[in-house]
Order: sequence, then structure tokens, then C-alpha cells
Amino acid sequence: MTSNDIVLLLTALGVLLAVARLFGEIAQHFHLTAVFGEILAGIVLGPTLLGLMAPEIGKTLFSPSGTGALVFEGIITLSVVLFLLVAGLEADISITWRQGKAVATMGISGIFFPSIIGFSVAWFFPDLLGRGAHADPLLFSIFIATALSISALPVIARILMDLDLYRSDLGMMITAAAIFNDLIGWITFAVILGMMGQENRHLSLMWTILLTIGFTLLTLTLIRKLIHRILPWIQAHTGWPGGQLGFTLSMTLLGAAFTEWIGVHAIFGAFMIGVAMGDTPHFRERIRALIDQFVSNFFAPIFFASIGLKLNFAVHFDLQMTLLVMVIACLGKILGCSLGGQMGGMPPREAWAIGFGMNARGAMEIILGLLALRFGIISESLFVALVIMAIATSLMSGPMMQRILRLKKPRRFYDFLPDQSIVRLQAVDALGAIAELAEAVGTVDGLTSREIAEAVRKREQLVPTGIGNEVAAPHARLPGISQPVVVLGISRDGIDFQAPDGRPAQFIFLILTPSKDNGAQVEILADIARTFRRRDFRMAALAAKGMTEFLAVVKSYGNSK
Amino acid sequence: MTSNDIVLLLTALGVLLAVARLFGEIAQHFHLTAVFGEILAGIVLGPTLLGLMAPEIGKTLFSPSGTGALVFEGIITLSVVLFLLVAGLEADISITWRQGKAVATMGISGIFFPSIIGFSVAWFFPDLLGRGAHADPLLFSIFIATALSISALPVIARILMDLDLYRSDLGMMITAAAIFNDLIGWITFAVILGMMGQENRHLSLMWTILLTIGFTLLTLTLIRKLIHRILPWIQAHTGWPGGQLGFTLSMTLLGAAFTEWIGVHAIFGAFMIGVAMGDTPHFRERIRALIDQFVSNFFAPIFFASIGLKLNFAVHFDLQMTLLVMVIACLGKILGCSLGGQMGGMPPREAWAIGFGMNARGAMEIILGLLALRFGIISESLFVALVIMAIATSLMSGPMMQRILRLKKPRRFYDFLPDQSIVRLQAVDALGAIAELAEAVGTVDGLTSREIAEAVRKREQLVPTGIGNEVAAPHARLPGISQPVVVLGISRDGIDFQAPDGRPAQFIFLILTPSKDNGAQVEILADIARTFRRRDFRMAALAAKGMTEFLAVVKSYGNSK
Repeated sequence: MTSNDIVLLLTALGVLLAVARLFGEIAQHFHLTAVFGEILAGIVLGPTLLGLMAPEIGKTLFSPSGTGALVFEGIITLSVVLFLLVAGLEADISITWRQGKAVATMGISGIFFPSIIGFSVAWFFPDLLGRGAHADPLLFSIFIATALSISALPVIARILMDLDLYRSDLGMMITAAAIFNDLIGWITFAVILGMMGQENRHLSLMWTILLTIGFTLLTLTLIRKLIHRILPWIQAHTGWPGGQLGFTLSMTLLGAAFTEWIGVHAIFGAFMIGVAMGDTPHFRERIRALIDQFVSNFFAPIFFASIGLKLNFAVHFDLQMTLLVMVIACLGKILGCSLGGQMGGMPPREAWAIGFGMNARGAMEIILGLLALRFGIISESLFVALVIMAIATSLMSGPMMQRILRLKKPRRFYDFLPDQSIVRLQAVDALGAIAELAEAVGTVDGLTSREIAEAVRKREQLVPTGIGNEVAAPHARLPGISQPVVVLGISRDGIDFQAPDGRPAQFIFLILTPSKDNGAQVEILADIARTFRRRDFRMAALAAKGMTEFLAVVKSYGNSK
Repeated sequence: MTSNDIVLLLTALGVLLAVARLFGEIAQHFHLTAVFGEILAGIVLGPTLLGLMAPEIGKTLFSPSGTGALVFEGIITLSVVLFLLVAGLEADISITWRQGKAVATMGISGIFFPSIIGFSVAWFFPDLLGRGAHADPLLFSIFIATALSISALPVIARILMDLDLYRSDLGMMITAAAIFNDLIGWITFAVILGMMGQENRHLSLMWTILLTIGFTLLTLTLIRKLIHRILPWIQAHTGWPGGQLGFTLSMTLLGAAFTEWIGVHAIFGAFMIGVAMGDTPHFRERIRALIDQFVSNFFAPIFFASIGLKLNFAVHFDLQMTLLVMVIACLGKILGCSLGGQMGGMPPREAWAIGFGMNARGAMEIILGLLALRFGIISESLFVALVIMAIATSLMSGPMMQRILRLKKPRRFYDFLPDQSIVRLQAVDALGAIAELAEAVGTVDGLTSREIAEAVRKREQLVPTGIGNEVAAPHARLPGISQPVVVLGISRDGIDFQAPDGRPAQFIFLILTPSKDNGAQVEILADIARTFRRRDFRMAALAAKGMTEFLAVVKSYGNSK
């Protein structure tokens, strides 16, 4: 690498990471999963937008060929391998045995339906899908069938993590079905590569299939047991956490290398090693969190953003073909999986959620598509349609599951702290503090601050609202207001709110909730009590200058897992 | 990248990481710093040993050219950049201002002495150092002067971390002097590159120097203040820890890209961004630990091991030249730095420690050497001599500092748990438990278990040894024994040792210490009391099957920072 290559590589990674994280945060702000924003970041930085508006910059930074591109590809490979390790570590495969029937029927019908539909359309209407001029009809049809039926394990895992569903039974079931699905998909993938006559195949197809099944079984039995035995030894005799971390990461790299060598993608090996590692109770939660947080916030955004960099989505865009690919892909997968789930005994709502969950496609379609494009089996427009289908199904997946399962995020007290400053209280007693805080609230939905103060005062005289740990939360339910309102006052010297622990309150929250919202008051009060329990947190919160620093302290101390 | 490239890349990284971590652990076992083992791992896996014994394997895995080598180089670059971020985050530059005079005199004399000596020898005795046939004498002499005077910031930082000295005043002083030293070294580096006529220089030398100084000042003032302002906002308005982590890492990559672009190495920018980030109190300790642990145990071992892969150390070895290079390098640096330190007002012992600390050389010598080799300025033997000098000075650095500063590791109770099993106690009272444990100890230095039991029993009857938290530690000082002995017994039902909290003891440690070792008993007792304070730790320790699992629990719960 020349110095110039290094400059470009580091700049490309830095820009990609920054924009991906930024878009990921924005997506979450709009209640979409982070992976949506990350993929979008890639499209914005790729040939579609940046490449169009500033072709020189786009080409230099994210050039599709040359030294930089090669190194970049290597780092992307490492990223997706480590991301699949995280997915594997978090996976709990015991659900597969407990819910075996549902997983198997879902896995099989989730492949069967889209394959049949895809194969039929490709076989009978090749022109609609843009078959290459000299392509073999059978090969083309098998390609389409496979491209429409491989679910994207990395994308699905990320969506489930974003929705906080990954470790739930439902999440594990989807993951198990996706593993099953992928296992079949990857073997078919190997068959197609064999048919395309990829030059450097060193193993016969039979061997690939046998070794894949053998590796899977071995990882889940012997290797799992060996890890269970070796891990305590490593913890006992090596430095912490270096020994366990080094062992986990090097095993992952070697497992990934092995599956890539037998003709299946590297990410499969990384995932399986993760499953085997995460299964033993000796695997410490701290190491899991450490790997998860670094990989999810460094490697994963870079990988997901890189998908959008691959081509110009505008130039090769064919609306009719894209729609057709979308319809047959979604129809086959969603119907297949949800019918399979219901046949396996799942309630319809969950079965549909699984259908949309499994509908996400990703990198495998794109990799397969790239190879097919190179061998002249498909046109560029079909390739674009496949990529758009992969992205669209991935984007659809999270929000649809969220809607079907009616997921709600728990409300935190700071969601209602309006964009105003913390009130520095002058008052020396509870009633004075309430008056000052009500003054700061001002008029809410027609209620004057005097009326608010009166309602809160009445409630306070009934039972004092000192919570303890230097916190008090005077509150009232008001029929007139539409949204909860929370205001924070801080008293340097403390005000007596007759807390059980006798300590005067330094943090005083005024909480107003709508009469008809039963849960709000209890949720907010419990959240405040829980958040302020730790002493080091309260010290840091007291030292905060202004609302931004206060929120920073709340999120970086209070939210820690 | 073909599938074959991916297999080789992942295997190479996996093997390198595994062997580097293994050798690092072994080195620590022998009281050497981990970085010693990591560099050694590279030599073993490189052309020197593996390349000789199994040339095919060595060449395939760690090939010095081709696609794999390129990607590998990119990952090494990323690794060293992230490692320097960690070093920067941990650096506390305030020492530079407080001890400014000592830092400056050390930094200057640490460059001046080795440069003068190196330049003189190269100028007057070029044949002894293997000057290239057509090399310009002045250029050759400046090269030698620079190659002997650049300290290796990454190596020094790692050694100081390994010795637990990095955050101490002495450690920060060495770091500050090394930064100062490096700043001058890198600028000279740029001058030499300019003289060698490296093809793609896009900035004039003057600009490189101005921009380097400008970047340094800007990072330490404006950028540092901006980060201090922005960080709370990021913590308040983005997900935790993703927001801060993404911000830190992308800033680092961009900073590194910038310094590489202006003609100074990328690691300088990463280090400076780390310094600016780590300086604000808003930078949370959890994020620092997270980045530190992942980078130190994944990226850093890969980088340090990669140094040994670069060439065959046996073939091009010239003893006389190597010794000459060693002598002039060490003489100049150690004398220069320690005299400078003493002139700056440091006590002689610390000044000598700093001399040996700053004596460590590393990647910059090797990079510079590679370029000089390519341009025909130096011979291959000189290159090998330079690399060996870099490694030898790096290896010498840690142990010499350890010896000069008389560093001792704190003793932990488990260092004395012999390689035997945990005693499952049958006894129901304290005296019975003591007898059982003394039985397990057997005869020590001529003392029978009966005599031991008698001594411990006497001590127990004086004051009971129940510590609380289900732990008891019956103990005795014995004149006859040479080493502390610790035995652990576990009682399912608990035995009353009259602890202050009234709870019966489940963990009973028998502790025997030599009469003349005053500290041992107190250290071991305090360590046990501290370790067993946490309830979740005790639950896990009780569940441990055998000594290995017990040690695993102690190290992975009890040692956590």
C-alpha cells in the first residue's frame, strides 16, 4: 500500500462509519431500525448519489477496483464475520429442539414456496426477468429460485436486535428457521457455483455438502463440549479478559476460514462458532457485551453501509422488473413462512410476524447476483432489481414486525423533559418548590400554572412524595392535558419532602399526566426511582451544567446494561 | 477477493492472533511483557522459522506479496491506528505542562545524542554499516541518524501498560517525551522521504512541517474544546454506547487519514485524537475500557506479531554489524535520555528508567528501513540489523525498567493455591475444619500436618478468624516454612467461625506464612476479604466444580476493572 492508499482507506472507513452511525441514529429517531439508516448511508455515499453529484470524490473514496477496493473488501469480510460471531453468541439454539416442528416446517416451506414460484416464473417467462442472451435456461431458473429464497441471517439478526426481540422465544425461532433456511440455501449456492463452473473449485459438490453437515453437527456437539471444558481453564490460567477474548476471536476466524474453504460462505462458520461459544454458562456476560458493543458499533455499520456502495441504483433501474421480483419474492417467502409456522402450531399473529421477519434478504443475494452477472446469466437490470429487493425486504421487515406484534418501547422519564433548562430552585420548602416548578411549566393545554400548582399541592398534602436517595416527585393527574409533562428542578441545599430515608430532596421532578393514561404516572415514577438509585450517578447528575449534560449523564450511566 | 483469498486471510489472522496471544500469555508467565511474546510469535510464524521448516505453508499463509498480503497490510494499518487511539485515550498530557522542562530536555537530548553518534559512525565508517554501493553519503548518514533516534511510541505505550506504569507520572513523562521525540522524528522522516525522491509527494516539505505543527496545536486546543462541548450532546441525543463509540472511532480514522495525507504517519493523527478525546471528563470510563480491551486483545497482538513476519532473520544476519548498530543505538538513546532527564531535575534512578523506556524502537525504523532498502541506500544485512535492534531494544525495555524501578506485582491469594483440589469439608466445627485442611496440606518444609494444625488452632482460639460474607481464614505464621501456603476448603452447610456478621463460613482458607515475611499474611487476608465481597461472585465460586473452575471464576469476576 502506498501512502495515498492508506489516506483513502482511512478516509473511506471514517466517512462511512460516521455517516452510517448518523443515519442509523436518525432512523431510530423515526422509529425505524438502525440497519435501515446504515444501508441508506451506503446508497447516499455510493454511485447513486455522491457518485452522481461529485463523481471524482465518490470514485476516489469508494472506488470499485484497485488496491483500495481490495483492502476495503477484506475489511468488509472481517466485519461481517465478526458480526455473525455476535449473532451466534446471542443465539440460543435450545429453542430449535423445543420448538423443532415449527422451526422445521417454517424453514422448509420458507424455501419451498419462493423457490417454486421463482423457478416457474424464470422457466416460463425468462424475458420478464431479463435472462442473459446465452444463459442456460435450467441454470437461470435455479439461480432465480435460490436468489429468492435465501434469507439474510445478518440482516435478520440485526433487525431482531434493534427491536429487542433477539433473545425472545420468537426471535430465537426466527433465527433457528433462518439458520436452517441458510444451510439449505448455502448448499444450493454451492451447487450453482459448481454449475457455473467457477474456476477454482477444489472440492467436489458432494464433499461440500458432506463437510457442511459434518461441520454443523460437530460444532453443536463435540466442539461445544470442548469449549465448555476449555473455557474455565483459559479463565483460570490466562490474563483477563485477554485470554478468553483472544480464544473466542481466533476460533471464530479459523471457523470462518474453514467453512469458506469447504465452499460455503465464511459467515456460516463464524456464526456456528458463536453459537457453540455462547452456549456454555462459562462464557462471561462481560465478554459477550464487550464483543457485541464494539462489533455492533464499528464493524456492523461499515458492513451494512458497504452494501449500498456496490452500484448505481438509478441508471440500471427497471421498474417493471423490480416490481415483479419484489412481488414473487415477498409472496413466496411471507406466505411460505407464515403458513409453515401455522402448520407447525404457531398462533397466526406470530406466524405472520415470522413471515415478514424471514422476508429480509441481503448480502448472499448480492454476492450470488454478482457472480451470475459476471458469467452472463443475468442482466444488469435484474441485478439492480435483486439488490433493491434485498434492501426493500430488509427495510420492510422491522417496521412490519413492529406493527404486527404491536411492540411498544418502554417510556422513559426523559422522553417528556421538554427542551428547556433545569430549574435552579430558590425555594426552601416543598410547597415553594412546587410553585416554582409549575411556574416553569407555564400554561399547558389551557391550564394555567396556578391551577397546576394547586392540583399538585393538593396531592402533596395527601401523602408526601419524597422517594428517597435525594429525589422527590410531586405529581398530579390532570383531565385537561394530552401528553405527560415532566420538569426537573435542582436544589443545592435540598428540600424536605419527607422521604422514607429522611434525606432532603435535591432532584425534584414535577410530573403531570393525563387522567385517562393509567400507565404513564406509574411508569415515569418507577423509572425515576430506578435511575437515581446509584450514588455515582447522582453525583454526576448534580454536576451537570444544563439539560444536555444532564441527559448525557442519564443515558451514559443509567442506560448501561 | 476470490474465495481462496478469503480462506487464506481468515486463516492467517486466526493463526496469528492465537499464537500471538498464546506467546503473550507465556511471556507474562515468565514475568516478561506481553509484547515480547507477540513479536516472538511473528518471528516463529514468519520466514525465519515456519518459512524454513514448512516453506509452502509459511509462504501461502503469510505471503509477502499478492492480494492476501495487500489486504493483510490494510488490516495491520487499521490495527496500529486503533492501538494508537487507545494509547492516546490513556495519555494524560497535563504532565507535559507540569514537568515541561524535564520532558523537553529529555526529548531533545534523546534525539540529539543518538543522531550525532549515528551520523558520525555512518559518515566516517560507512563500510562497517553496509552503505549501498551507489548511495549518497549524506543521505545515508541522515538515514542512520534518524533510524537510531525515533522511539517507538506504540511499543513504549504497550510496555508501560503491561507494567501498569502508563497512567503513573513517570509513565506519562516517558510518553510525553516520546511524543515530542516522535514529532521531530516524523518530520525528519518526511525530509528523508523528500530526499529519496519518493514519487508521489504532493506537498512540499515546508507544508508538511507547518501542517504537522498546526495539527498538533489545533488538536490540543480547539478540537479538544469542541469535543468537550459535543460529547455530552452526543450522549444525550444518541443511543448508548453506539453514539459515542461511533463518534470516537470515525474521528480517529479521519484524524489518522489527515496526518498520513500531510506526509506524517497515520498513527500520529490517531494518537492525537485519542489524547484530545480522553482529556474531557465527559469521556466515560466504560467506553475507554471497552475500546481498550477489544483493541488490546485483537488488533494490538496482530500488529505486533506482524513485525516478525517481514523477513528471514537468520539468512541476512551479520553479527558484527548487528552488535555495532545495537551499541550505538543504545548508547546514544539511553545516555541521551537519562542525562537529559537528570538535567531536567529528575532523580537518577527514574532518569535511567526513562532512558531504558525510551530506548524501545519499532515500526517506524522498519518502515523507514524498507524504503531505504528499496532505494538502494542500505544493504539487506543492515536492514536485518535495524529490525533486530528494534526488537532487542523493545524487549530490553520492559525488564530493565522493572529492575531499575524495583517493581513488584501485588501478591494474590490464588498465587499460592497449590495445584491440588478444593477440600470438600466434612467437619461441622472450626477445629475439625482446621484439622482437615492441615491434613490436606501434608508436610511442609519438615513441619507435619499435626504441627501445622496445632499452630493454627492456637491462633484460632486467640481470636476467631471468621471474616464475614461466608468466608473464614484460619492462619498461622510458621518459622520453618519458606513460602506462603494457602489451601481452600468448602463446606456445603457452613461452619461457624464467629464472623462479625454472624453468618457461618462456606469458604475456609487455611493460610500459612513464613514468620520473617511480614507483609504476606496481611496481603493475602485483605485480598481474600476484598475478592469475596460480591454476592454474585460467591454464588459462582460455590458452583465451581474443582480448582480450575474456581480459579476461572476468581479471575473473570474478581479481577474485573
